[in-house]
Amino acid sequence: MNDYNKKGKKAYSLLKELFPITRSITGNGVRKTLERIKQNIPIEIHEVPSGYEAYDWTVPDEWNIKDAYVIAPDGSKIIDFKSNNLHVLYYSIPFNGELSLDEFKKHIYTIPEKPDLIPFVASYYKRQWGICMSQNTLDSLEDGLYKIVIDCTLSSGFLTYGEVVVKGNSDKEIFLSTYTCHPSLANDNLSGVVVTSELVEYIISLKEREYTYRIIFIPETIGALVYMSKNLPVMKKNILAGYTVTCVGDPGGYSYLMSKKTNEYVDKVTMHVLKNLDKEYRVYDYQSRGSDERQYSSPGADIPIGSLMKSKYHEYMEYHTSADNLSYVTAEGLGESIDAYKLCIDVYENNKHYIVNVIGEAQLSSRDLYPTTFQSKQSFDVNKIVDFMAYADGTMDLIDISDKIGVPIWDLYDVILILISHELISEVKPSYE
Amino acid sequence: MNDYNKKGKKAYSLLKELFPITRSITGNGVRKTLERIKQNIPIEIHEVPSGYEAYDWTVPDEWNIKDAYVIAPDGSKIIDFKSNNLHVLYYSIPFNGELSLDEFKKHIYTIPEKPDLIPFVASYYKRQWGICMSQNTLDSLEDGLYKIVIDCTLSSGFLTYGEVVVKGNSDKEIFLSTYTCHPSLANDNLSGVVVTSELVEYIISLKEREYTYRIIFIPETIGALVYMSKNLPVMKKNILAGYTVTCVGDPGGYSYLMSKKTNEYVDKVTMHVLKNLDKEYRVYDYQSRGSDERQYSSPGADIPIGSLMKSKYHEYMEYHTSADNLSYVTAEGLGESIDAYKLCIDVYENNKHYIVNVIGEAQLSSRDLYPTTFQSKQSFDVNKIVDFMAYADGTMDLIDISDKIGVPIWDLYDVILILISHELISEVKPSYE
Amino acid sequence: MNDYNKKGKKAYSLLKELFPITRSITGNGVRKTLERIKQNIPIEIHEVPSGYEAYDWTVPDEWNIKDAYVIAPDGSKIIDFKSNNLHVLYYSIPFNGELSLDEFKKHIYTIPEKPDLIPFVASYYKRQWGICMSQNTLDSLEDGLYKIVIDCTLSSGFLTYGEVVVKGNSDKEIFLSTYTCHPSLANDNLSGVVVTSELVEYIISLKEREYTYRIIFIPETIGALVYMSKNLPVMKKNILAGYTVTCVGDPGGYSYLMSKKTNEYVDKVTMHVLKNLDKEYRVYDYQSRGSDERQYSSPGADIPIGSLMKSKYHEYMEYHTSADNLSYVTAEGLGESIDAYKLCIDVYENNKHYIVNVIGEAQLSSRDLYPTTFQSKQSFDVNKIVDFMAYADGTMDLIDISDKIGVPIWDLYDVILILISHELISEVKPSYE
Repeated sequence: MNDYNKKGKKAYSLLKELFPITRSITGNGVRKTLERIKQNIPIEIHEVPSGYEAYDWTVPDEWNIKDAYVIAPDGSKIIDFKSNNLHVLYYSIPFNGELSLDEFKKHIYTIPEKPDLIPFVASYYKRQWGICMSQNTLDSLEDGLYKIVIDCTLSSGFLTYGEVVVKGNSDKEIFLSTYTCHPSLANDNLSGVVVTSELVEYIISLKEREYTYRIIFIPETIGALVYMSKNLPVMKKNILAGYTVTCVGDPGGYSYLMSKKTNEYVDKVTMHVLKNLDKEYRVYDYQSRGSDERQYSSPGADIPIGSLMKSKYHEYMEYHTSADNLSYVTAEGLGESIDAYKLCIDVYENNKHYIVNVIGEAQLSSRDLYPTTFQSKQSFDVNKIVDFMAYADGTMDLIDISDKIGVPIWDLYDVILILISHELISEVKPSYE
Repeated sequence: MNDYNKKGKKAYSLLKELFPITRSITGNGVRKTLERIKQNIPIEIHEVPSGYEAYDWTVPDEWNIKDAYVIAPDGSKIIDFKSNNLHVLYYSIPFNGELSLDEFKKHIYTIPEKPDLIPFVASYYKRQWGICMSQNTLDSLEDGLYKIVIDCTLSSGFLTYGEVVVKGNSDKEIFLSTYTCHPSLANDNLSGVVVTSELVEYIISLKEREYTYRIIFIPETIGALVYMSKNLPVMKKNILAGYTVTCVGDPGGYSYLMSKKTNEYVDKVTMHVLKNLDKEYRVYDYQSRGSDERQYSSPGADIPIGSLMKSKYHEYMEYHTSADNLSYVTAEGLGESIDAYKLCIDVYENNKHYIVNVIGEAQLSSRDLYPTTFQSKQSFDVNKIVDFMAYADGTMDLIDISDKIGVPIWDLYDVILILISHELISEVKPSYE
Repeated sequence: MNDYNKKGKKAYSLLKELFPITRSITGNGVRKTLERIKQNIPIEIHEVPSGYEAYDWTVPDEWNIKDAYVIAPDGSKIIDFKSNNLHVLYYSIPFNGELSLDEFKKHIYTIPEKPDLIPFVASYYKRQWGICMSQNTLDSLEDGLYKIVIDCTLSSGFLTYGEVVVKGNSDKEIFLSTYTCHPSLANDNLSGVVVTSELVEYIISLKEREYTYRIIFIPETIGALVYMSKNLPVMKKNILAGYTVTCVGDPGGYSYLMSKKTNEYVDKVTMHVLKNLDKEYRVYDYQSRGSDERQYSSPGADIPIGSLMKSKYHEYMEYHTSADNLSYVTAEGLGESIDAYKLCIDVYENNKHYIVNVIGEAQLSSRDLYPTTFQSKQSFDVNKIVDFMAYADGTMDLIDISDKIGVPIWDLYDVILILISHELISEVKPSYE
């Protein structure tokens, strides 16, 4: 069994456990989710009260729901929130009443072009009520009086989020942000939650860290803004590279949403990793953004954020429907995302500048690093040593040299160890620090 | 009727009126042309005397012509200047005499590969005489004595040009230069004269102007040099972008001759306009230059000049022949050029830098600028607002943002008005001022 | 007969004369080769003793060989160094003894995939003995005792190299380095030796030189390092562009190995020359390096070095075998290389910056440089004058302008002379001096 399968299976198992919980941008579902994550990693849980102002936005009342259902004129329960929590309009106001079909229809949401699927719909900032169902169900409704119950509360409370900062040698930070506000939707974004949790375990397991890692579990948009409102100066000062971790669980190939400027360090690192993992990976411009990079990279915030995904939101048909479920996401899919993010973390830790300590080529044969007679061919390892030393002049970082000589950066980690042990190269401080 | 048709018809009507006048680089034809233009727009008419030195050149004697004809051995008038003023070599010296066909032929100009057409030929700086005719006419000539009369004068006088400066808020200038020295040739360049006249009317009609507009009507080459000799310091200091307005009347698609450096502001503005008007427009490098950009962009002058044309000189078969006439140029063709230049002027006036006034995305729903429930799709207008604000960080101008988000700049003019009225953005001073 | 044939024939004749000499990285073969070259050009011959340290390397003992042969069990001499000096492992220790075929085989070198050819193999820094032969010969050997004699000496002596510096107006240098350490191999690298010798004759023949030329004939690797150890400060300070001259004798098309940074002046000059000589020429990145650019361009040395070749080492099947002989190299092949390098030298000497002395276009007709009547076409020479003057603003060098207007730089040498004689342009000092 590959390492990614092992990792993927653990992540999938956690995802399955968290899937049934009803989460939204506030409420007990988020609290319950974060408490479960806290059993695996040392997150700190924060709460900010309703009415808290974050830039142009205000934290809304807390929303909690107990039940919701619809009784048809024939007395049958045709909609039951307990069977699928997408059946309610998220942030619906409470409702309990009887309506004619025509009146009821004004509050029904479907996706006519995907008639089998229940849509995920929310109305966070306009108070209204609604029921979501498949178009097929809607089409089957007959005239008569419908009893609709939405048993929820919408009142002053808190917005809840989790945060963990893992210290490294440098104050410079790598930032991971994932959102916890979606209900039973597996890829968007329970996958992000469980993959991020695995990554925190990995980061903590490292013997030494060059960088500090800041990881947050927040509701999308309002949570990102709340977090920025409390941390923006330190984020602007320290974050070297950041990611929105979302849609990382399906078996499709890798996708990468570039940072707004397209040439940030996060882009260099991630695209080096992905091109060496999967030549066919898809690249999207910031013009296709859709998650919290919208806040982090907004003018004035300007934090460099990318997003390494599997199938990107809006690009897979199951997105924001009842089909984004435990069948759509797989252990292998989660494992591949964990692998790719771990390789990125390794690159941040290892991508340094080196300079050779001799003028001219080093005499490798005297150090048993070179074949002692030459013919046309050399062994591949010698080539990597010779090639690396040809370019290691302190101006190119390890990614630059890897790209130049056509190998993944991880093929040079051993070369570096060998050359340092022979005192043939020295580290020089990279320019971006 | 489209706006361009209306404009095009007025321009075409003026072109038809001016077409019969015999213009050259000096003389009464130019005076008469400028006087007619002055009825429409407030140009100032300037004269410089023969012998005036402009850099490496000297204003030649003034040339005026009353008549020219050729009588064949059989007594018939085979060439008559009054039927087509291309029949004379421009700047011909006077001639009145009888010659054998062989002697006459030394002074005849034709285009063998376009046997039906009379060429336009001139000899401004070497004194000689000549008659232009079609190759077919030449081939039909029989031996015998030909009586040739060129009743013209070439003597000390003036070079005449027109100028209008329309003041704006800034001293920085947009510059339009068109040439008045060609006789009955419709596209090259009576089209330039009438289109420029329309553009001056448009510029004057603007309620407010960011920029000052300098517009001149001059004879090609010598006129440009004379004008530069009197105005170069202010031109170098103030001109932000300039155009040679020529060949703007035919129904062919748009062409653009780039500035010498290819990345001047004039190139950015004009190519943004043209690619959004006509994806197939042709681009030419300065290597294909042929009009007064040769003087304005010469080393030491270095004024950034482009040329927005329809079919470029040298590229259409009617060029510099009797076929460049009132049939080749159309009202629609003129109207399309007027439209494109007006769009460019609008871009200069509107292409500013803006910065958003909030950190994070603005909450558009609270301002009724956003749908209050979300599903997969958003309305297009909201997208333009959101996309614009994502990039409006004060470093990109409006063209940059338009290109980034894939819309013509004019689609953002309304967005700007809306966002300014909500105090969501502010203008910042562009870097090139 | 073309000039290149004449040059090529003289070079080929010298190559034929030098071919039989047994050269290695030290020894009498190199001395003899350099003495012969000294009859043509004024090289200074230098020697450094065994044990001399050059950075990470040490000059080994001097190696000289008198004879080597193998007697088969049947008494026949099956290997004879005198018939082909590739039969010995270069830098072999002396050996004289009888061995069984199995024992002998441990010291035999062949190329199984080129069974007809004897390989060139060396072991400069590990003391061992060996015999090289074709795979076919090896396959024909029968069991029994083989008598092997390698009559050579390996003892304290000298490393020998040649150097010539030809002074120019500037201290800035053009550098040519060729290696003399290969035995009877014609393309790699006797071709480099004889072509470099011809180029020195050409450089000395120039009436005047802008640049100083430094040319060296050295053993590969250890010789380059020895030379750098004595001259690096002046090389770093003065060398503007350098070449490793190797593999310049075969009839194949041109190749160019770019400098490490790919955008050095040597790359600009050489690629301008080659693209105008041979549109199909091959370009290699420094990643494909294989000769002394490895030392000159190593981190800390950083001298900009390219290599203009015909068929590149490693890329032709005859490379480092007995087939790289007098048939593989031709007079025409050598002549084409001499031509290309001479054109490069001419470019270094002529590639200056000019600025026009007038504002606006010059009036060429008054100087008899322009046709006095115009029609659609102009003569080509006038175009070159007009085009050159349009771009000659002192910021572009002659290569830049040539590339812009689409002509080889050598087509402008006459234009420059004409315009300087009319005082229409002046030279300005290039920025890289």
